[in-house]
Amino acid sequence: MTALENLSKLLSRLPGVGPKSASRIAFSLINTPKDYNDLLAQSIAEIKDKVRPCSICGSFTETEICPVCADSMRDRTQLCIVEQPQDVLSIQASGAYNGLFHVLGGAINPLNGVGPENLSFSQLIKRIDEGSFKEIIIATNPTEEGDTTALYIRHILKDREGLTLTRLASGLPIGGDLEYADRTTLTRSFRGRISF
Amino acid sequence: MTALENLSKLLSRLPGVGPKSASRIAFSLINTPKDYNDLLAQSIAEIKDKVRPCSICGSFTETEICPVCADSMRDRTQLCIVEQPQDVLSIQASGAYNGLFHVLGGAINPLNGVGPENLSFSQLIKRIDEGSFKEIIIATNPTEEGDTTALYIRHILKDREGLTLTRLASGLPIGGDLEYADRTTLTRSFRGRISF
Repeated sequence: MTALENLSKLLSRLPGVGPKSASRIAFSLINTPKDYNDLLAQSIAEIKDKVRPCSICGSFTETEICPVCADSMRDRTQLCIVEQPQDVLSIQASGAYNGLFHVLGGAINPLNGVGPENLSFSQLIKRIDEGSFKEIIIATNPTEEGDTTALYIRHILKDREGLTLTRLASGLPIGGDLEYADRTTLTRSFRGRISF
Repeated sequence: MTALENLSKLLSRLPGVGPKSASRIAFSLINTPKDYNDLLAQSIAEIKDKVRPCSICGSFTETEICPVCADSMRDRTQLCIVEQPQDVLSIQASGAYNGLFHVLGGAINPLNGVGPENLSFSQLIKRIDEGSFKEIIIATNPTEEGDTTALYIRHILKDREGLTLTRLASGLPIGGDLEYADRTTLTRSFRGRISF
């Protein structure tokens, strides 16, 4: 196997990179500046050592406690539960939320062998017991697994007094087109319709 | 800038990788095996040193002369002229051709400051003078720049006797749909229609 084929093969294992794009990227790396290649290589080699899960929320961080958990200006009465560390980044980028996060590390998926015991539910309960949360916002994905996980969270938290449970709204994406919306999304939009 | 942001930014400079995919790839590299990250990093850091242009055809190679130029089983009466080293790989993968290649290093594009003097035309002439080619197959891209380059090649080779000049057929891609074909492709398909 040549160096180019080897690089293409490694690149094609990255998410969203098929054999064609892998080959295109490999070729492009022959023409990029040497400095860039070295920086990229170094950054890839180091990333696993630099980034770790936050000991409180489970989001990725380079310090013991992530910037969100450490930020005293965040609203400590709201807790947003997400599946993956990436979801924290997306919500942070939207600027729509100023509370704390809890990363489950996935969604309940019995077919893939992911049960509640594989996710960070015990830490979640501990945080809720010790914290001063008033609202728990369930922001698992609007998928079958995400919905199952949301139902499970409702189940384990249902007897707590003074705790409001909410779930992110599902429906038509902004800028989307009714014509191209799938049936499930349309059904959800109807069920979740709001007074206007 | 955090390590993840830094890695995402570097990745987003790769062709076909936007900010969203860059961030997705960066996150994925936290969960891939350490061995894989190290191999990928090493492969990226080394690729520029390992790969060089073939001293005959200009295609990428890890040896002085590329495997195609060195292969005594290839038909040395046919020369296929392409723009980029990648094009050699695509044609090789198709298995449709068994002759030699010549890589120009691009296409004539006056707006981007690429004139004939920036491409390997002098080497091309030298190879044709010294070789035993009977057919020159012009496989520049079916774009304005590729067409201009094809016309230029025809111009500089038009007085050579015993040399057939051909150009790859343009038309509807196989598996494509007339409904979605653009006007230029359809026009080319009509002009280039063959007896059936």
